[in-house]
Amino acid sequence: MEKNDRELLPELLPFWGKLKEPEKKQIFDHTILNTYQNGQKIHGGYEDCTGVIAVKSGRLRVYLLSEEGKEVTLFRLLDQDVCLLSASCIMRNISFDIYVDAEGPTELFVVNAAVYDKLAKENPAVGNFMTELISMRFSEAMWVMEQILFMKLDKRLAMFLLEEANLENGDTITLTHEQIAGHLGSAREVISRMLKYFSNEEILSVSRKGIKILDRKRLTEFV
Amino acid sequence: MEKNDRELLPELLPFWGKLKEPEKKQIFDHTILNTYQNGQKIHGGYEDCTGVIAVKSGRLRVYLLSEEGKEVTLFRLLDQDVCLLSASCIMRNISFDIYVDAEGPTELFVVNAAVYDKLAKENPAVGNFMTELISMRFSEAMWVMEQILFMKLDKRLAMFLLEEANLENGDTITLTHEQIAGHLGSAREVISRMLKYFSNEEILSVSRKGIKILDRKRLTEFV
Repeated sequence: MEKNDRELLPELLPFWGKLKEPEKKQIFDHTILNTYQNGQKIHGGYEDCTGVIAVKSGRLRVYLLSEEGKEVTLFRLLDQDVCLLSASCIMRNISFDIYVDAEGPTELFVVNAAVYDKLAKENPAVGNFMTELISMRFSEAMWVMEQILFMKLDKRLAMFLLEEANLENGDTITLTHEQIAGHLGSAREVISRMLKYFSNEEILSVSRKGIKILDRKRLTEFV
Repeated sequence: MEKNDRELLPELLPFWGKLKEPEKKQIFDHTILNTYQNGQKIHGGYEDCTGVIAVKSGRLRVYLLSEEGKEVTLFRLLDQDVCLLSASCIMRNISFDIYVDAEGPTELFVVNAAVYDKLAKENPAVGNFMTELISMRFSEAMWVMEQILFMKLDKRLAMFLLEEANLENGDTITLTHEQIAGHLGSAREVISRMLKYFSNEEILSVSRKGIKILDRKRLTEFV
């Protein structure tokens, strides 16, 4: 790692101040900085234990994937976010698979899972961070579940489009209908039908180039 | 607490052997044994911080509840199970509500949340148990989510009926169609239609008294 990165990594790990010098060295010695391209798979399936990831820059999507290829987005990781679910080998009792893809060019610190696990067992500050982070991801996943179970799809789609537009700092969403269906755990036909409704109402324009929000006020009323 | 109960409680808390004597005393001094009747609400909503619960005997249902009254079962607690989500006030970053009801006569140890929190911060064994338990509940909830998202309802209903019959040690399920819909996050009409299909196939008999499994082998084929 370069000097800049050695200065940045401690800022991403809230327990850094409570590490002893040899512990800090262990993390530095067992962390690599990887770069990924848009769409590249970073983690997925039972097989691999990628490690603890901390986002230097970029955007990642964390999602569930069924055997039949159906997807649902659990949460996004943005700059400075940390994720332990990509190190499920060290998370006792975590028995589900998640998949992580880059959405845009991404730089990631990857901390070796075994080294992290050892620190978590020895140093209560690292262990507490683990509990807090897992609780946060649990809450995010339950929020998605409540949305899917309890919220109508028009509301969910409106919220999703507004969020995506915000992530892109504009009014245009360049995802396909298929991709949106994947994010929301729905079917492409259902999404297309609802987009057509929004389009007929002149809330959106839908074209090959993507979806453009025309009337943000009315779209927000669906939320 | 009576002598028997003072002997039982340590068996339910895996970290007991790693507590110091004053810590053990703190738990004994701040734990009560409550009894509940079938259907009684034990925990629910943002308001209350019931405490850490450990099941002496009985059965509990842990579920999500929407503002419109729609339910979905996340998991059951049986004898000797421990649950921290009923002490969400001490779970930093847990931002969702769960509801817990007794299903049948139930005896519960309830450990004071603040006392438990203090121990978890001081004693790594208690903290580690917290991480493991939260990870386990996270996994159970994600399993339910994957079922809902990725699995067909006939399969889910067949699994549910077999599980319920096992819990009752018999072939009869005394839940209403409405209750089954609540467990599976579905609608009563959908469940009734599917039960009628199973009934027409002579896999089940459906009457006012409940649902009886007639052909366990064929029901299992749906799973």
